[in-house]
Amino acid sequence: MTTLGKMGEHEAIRRLTAMLGMHADLTVGAGDDCAVVKLPAIGFDQVFTTDPVVEGVHFLKGEKPERIGNKAVGRVLSDMAAMGAQPQWILVNVVAPADLEFSVLEGIYSGIGRLCGQFGATVIGGDLAKGPVLELHVFGTGILPSGTALLRSGAKVGDRIFVTGKLGDSFSGKHLDFTPRVSEGIWLRESGLVHSMMDLSDGLATDLRHILKQSGAGAEIAADLVPKNGTLEQALFDGEDFELLLTAAPENTESLKTQWAQKFDSELFEIGGITENTGELALTGSGKSRRILTDKAFEHFQTEGGKNE
Amino acid sequence: MTTLGKMGEHEAIRRLTAMLGMHADLTVGAGDDCAVVKLPAIGFDQVFTTDPVVEGVHFLKGEKPERIGNKAVGRVLSDMAAMGAQPQWILVNVVAPADLEFSVLEGIYSGIGRLCGQFGATVIGGDLAKGPVLELHVFGTGILPSGTALLRSGAKVGDRIFVTGKLGDSFSGKHLDFTPRVSEGIWLRESGLVHSMMDLSDGLATDLRHILKQSGAGAEIAADLVPKNGTLEQALFDGEDFELLLTAAPENTESLKTQWAQKFDSELFEIGGITENTGELALTGSGKSRRILTDKAFEHFQTEGGKNE
Repeated sequence: MTTLGKMGEHEAIRRLTAMLGMHADLTVGAGDDCAVVKLPAIGFDQVFTTDPVVEGVHFLKGEKPERIGNKAVGRVLSDMAAMGAQPQWILVNVVAPADLEFSVLEGIYSGIGRLCGQFGATVIGGDLAKGPVLELHVFGTGILPSGTALLRSGAKVGDRIFVTGKLGDSFSGKHLDFTPRVSEGIWLRESGLVHSMMDLSDGLATDLRHILKQSGAGAEIAADLVPKNGTLEQALFDGEDFELLLTAAPENTESLKTQWAQKFDSELFEIGGITENTGELALTGSGKSRRILTDKAFEHFQTEGGKNE
Repeated sequence: MTTLGKMGEHEAIRRLTAMLGMHADLTVGAGDDCAVVKLPAIGFDQVFTTDPVVEGVHFLKGEKPERIGNKAVGRVLSDMAAMGAQPQWILVNVVAPADLEFSVLEGIYSGIGRLCGQFGATVIGGDLAKGPVLELHVFGTGILPSGTALLRSGAKVGDRIFVTGKLGDSFSGKHLDFTPRVSEGIWLRESGLVHSMMDLSDGLATDLRHILKQSGAGAEIAADLVPKNGTLEQALFDGEDFELLLTAAPENTESLKTQWAQKFDSELFEIGGITENTGELALTGSGKSRRILTDKAFEHFQTEGGKNE
């Protein structure tokens, strides 16, 4: 066992880099000023995203290192999935106290490498710095055919709304162990049936509001149709589900569901529809009258509906 | 005046994003899951780099925000300069305590935007998270014609060694205010006269050793030729100079210097040559016999040469 402080940053980076993969399009890997990659042939757009994962905010001190690595890179892959992009290049900045055991970093990199390998992404660089708490900053790029990225702004009045899995209670474990919906995101883009898409990181109520705002529309969700791991409240507000939220034209709903069922073991849940009531997010069913979820949705909902419906 | 905690992360990101530039190749900017850009026509490689800047490590608490921003993005642009790449896309992760004044972040973004604008780079995304100290993690990509990146591994025995400016004593201010040698790096690549190049971040003695290791060669530096802001010791070991270190064939030295002088106001300093003594970094002149700088160069040098030669 040795700490980061004893080993030194350069040696630590050298050892961690040796754990990374190679790729035929990676011309210059770690060890020079930049990594150099071949660009794909003409006809592709590139997507960029970055997410921080901070000890005490996104995970607790003492968490299993592989799970920290999985979450850090999983968040970035989930963002790419939300556009329908194929993940490609990953860079990782690590901030850590000098007394951190080096084996923790090895475990984190192991988690990162496993998830990247699963979805065709390659870690090509990054840096290491001292700081008071453990943090990972993962930067990622992906590609997709020009002009095909699925955006938040594409929802149309009448669209049906879908999610790719059960929502809520992510903090009991899933927020660290989740598998980003990369394959599903790419397939959904290629289907040509999806109008808008995003990934669920802040909770269904908050995230759907982004689609409504950017698409200039409203939505009505049927409480009984929302797939739940815990309570309805958790499904609407917990966050960190990392499922995909998408909309498609009503006439394509059956086709989308049929093709999905042939391709994936998991279920595609239809939970409501896009309305013309711009900015309004309404909830129906569950033995209650139609309710409007306001911007202060969480507090409002608690008052109206109680904690355990 | 308002703090980050009072404003909330989403509002802070929205306001900071409004400070960023646009670009004709940026299809989708901030506000969706990823930024989306058009890829250049065929025939280009892409370079990737990332650097952390942490309060208490890379700058002191209370430092002028514009200078923090300048340093954070300047380090990344300097890495790209070291390959001869044209900077293109920048993403910025910020970690900050909840009680940080929002005006500090505005100042940092102002510094970032100014330097990016100077060199044709565009900030297209990033994220904001709470943490115990202020940190910036800047991720950047650039482009250059396929196969033309200037690497650390290209030095040849007999090459002359050059630096693009005075070295040492950076910590008295230059480490925050420096201008990355982007224009010089691109010009040096286009000249076709440079065999190897890198930027000076850890000090001449340490950084030159990277070129020697990756090129399988040695080097001899003439102490009297090293351009200094302070002492020779500072020029060799201080670090954070962010000048370029490069090698070129001896028969091209005059041509390189002449063309440089026509293009740039600053001086290109010739400081020594590449030798066949693999891994050996030697120092001549300054009224002393030829000395070998060992891996523990700093301590060794202090013992042999004293602090103020």
